[in-house]
Amino acid sequence: MCELLGMSANVPTDITFSLTGLMQRGGRTGPHRDGWGVALYEGRGLHMFKDSMPGADSEVARMIQGYPLKSRTVIAHIRHANVGSVNLANTHPFVRELGGRYWCFVHNGQLNEFAPDPGLFQPVGDTDSEAAFCYLLNEVRRRFPDPVPVEMLLPVLVGTCDHFRRFGVFNCLLSDGDWLFTFCSTKLAHITRRAPFGPAHLKDADLTVDFKAETTPDDVVTVIATEPLTANETWALHQPGEWKLWWDGEIVTQGRV
Amino acid sequence: MCELLGMSANVPTDITFSLTGLMQRGGRTGPHRDGWGVALYEGRGLHMFKDSMPGADSEVARMIQGYPLKSRTVIAHIRHANVGSVNLANTHPFVRELGGRYWCFVHNGQLNEFAPDPGLFQPVGDTDSEAAFCYLLNEVRRRFPDPVPVEMLLPVLVGTCDHFRRFGVFNCLLSDGDWLFTFCSTKLAHITRRAPFGPAHLKDADLTVDFKAETTPDDVVTVIATEPLTANETWALHQPGEWKLWWDGEIVTQGRV
Repeated sequence: MCELLGMSANVPTDITFSLTGLMQRGGRTGPHRDGWGVALYEGRGLHMFKDSMPGADSEVARMIQGYPLKSRTVIAHIRHANVGSVNLANTHPFVRELGGRYWCFVHNGQLNEFAPDPGLFQPVGDTDSEAAFCYLLNEVRRRFPDPVPVEMLLPVLVGTCDHFRRFGVFNCLLSDGDWLFTFCSTKLAHITRRAPFGPAHLKDADLTVDFKAETTPDDVVTVIATEPLTANETWALHQPGEWKLWWDGEIVTQGRV
Repeated sequence: MCELLGMSANVPTDITFSLTGLMQRGGRTGPHRDGWGVALYEGRGLHMFKDSMPGADSEVARMIQGYPLKSRTVIAHIRHANVGSVNLANTHPFVRELGGRYWCFVHNGQLNEFAPDPGLFQPVGDTDSEAAFCYLLNEVRRRFPDPVPVEMLLPVLVGTCDHFRRFGVFNCLLSDGDWLFTFCSTKLAHITRRAPFGPAHLKDADLTVDFKAETTPDDVVTVIATEPLTANETWALHQPGEWKLWWDGEIVTQGRV
């Protein structure tokens, strides 16, 4: 299993605090020693930092914790390998260009005996996660050869994620840089921070941030993770089958299958 | 115009020395202030570091210069924008997955009135370079729906690059992580270092490396750049229309159109 982290915000926001908490689970407070990655959108472009080293030991991780990259949309992952060996090609997030946008994906769970027919998008590594991502994009492309608003994609996204549940556990985050789609198969949680901002204390490291000092009154910042990352805030727990579409830190639409 | 850097080696090799020289041209000894990027393959996976800040000022650039990532195949670029604004989406290298491999591309030059029909692969940004890369991949995919050995691709790669010359200047590097293809429209140069290794002194910074201390006798390391990077070595200059296919630091096949 793995841990996921997503952020959707209405202003470019520093993800360092949440990422620090997540990275501790990469070999220190958690068993996820098999690589990590973080994708930060900047406009339509994407910064991608990945390492097949444990997050807690990774030089690249230390570097980005010291260099605050701000973004409105972030997707991150730490890996505990079950399918596929430990190497960079098997490290989330996975990215593909579809319709002139970079789509970015992370998965928590395991799909058993999932062997889809090859499509236009093909996995580079040998994880069930990347195979599922490619299958999902192939479905989107098959149904919508040309770009459409994300609301029109939702039946395909939700239906395909629901289909994956037949094969095992499938919690995922997916984004094109503007919207962020979340699907809960067994566990996901989120917190939306807005004014009045207060302090937050990480569960996994002795670190407190006073968001009041870091934000303006109009900021809306949602953080989504497999498990709550802070000890002194109330996170909303998602139910099995629950999906949400986020934009600018807010839920645009949601449902449950 | 821009500057390109490529490396093909038979062992994972530290690119830091050459990258340091290149980065100086990003705003210090050269005018290429509009972003930079470096892609380093690790197996079938890819590390990608990019910034729309000048290479000479970039925090991300300083970080990777302090953290030696070793790779057999590297592609890097510093940008002097002519087509497309300065932002991350317009920053080279560009990457797409094709046939289960990550293809990576950088371009030096400018294509005028190049407006291809949309294909499966579409640009995310608005540079002529990314449009050309997508056109090239669409041509490969159209001719070869399934993966084939690179030798079979060469007529498409060479023919398409030659076609691009009708629109302007097109020096490029392209790789799938194993092979590295280079095409010279106006300027490219390479040096192949092998035993007995000696010292090399950068043109653009007061830095000397003794490769003897960094290598074993069997290492073969080729560096390709738009302009020679060192002052005390003899670089081979490529002729207009000259193309080469590299593997493990050696020329596999070459020609001129």
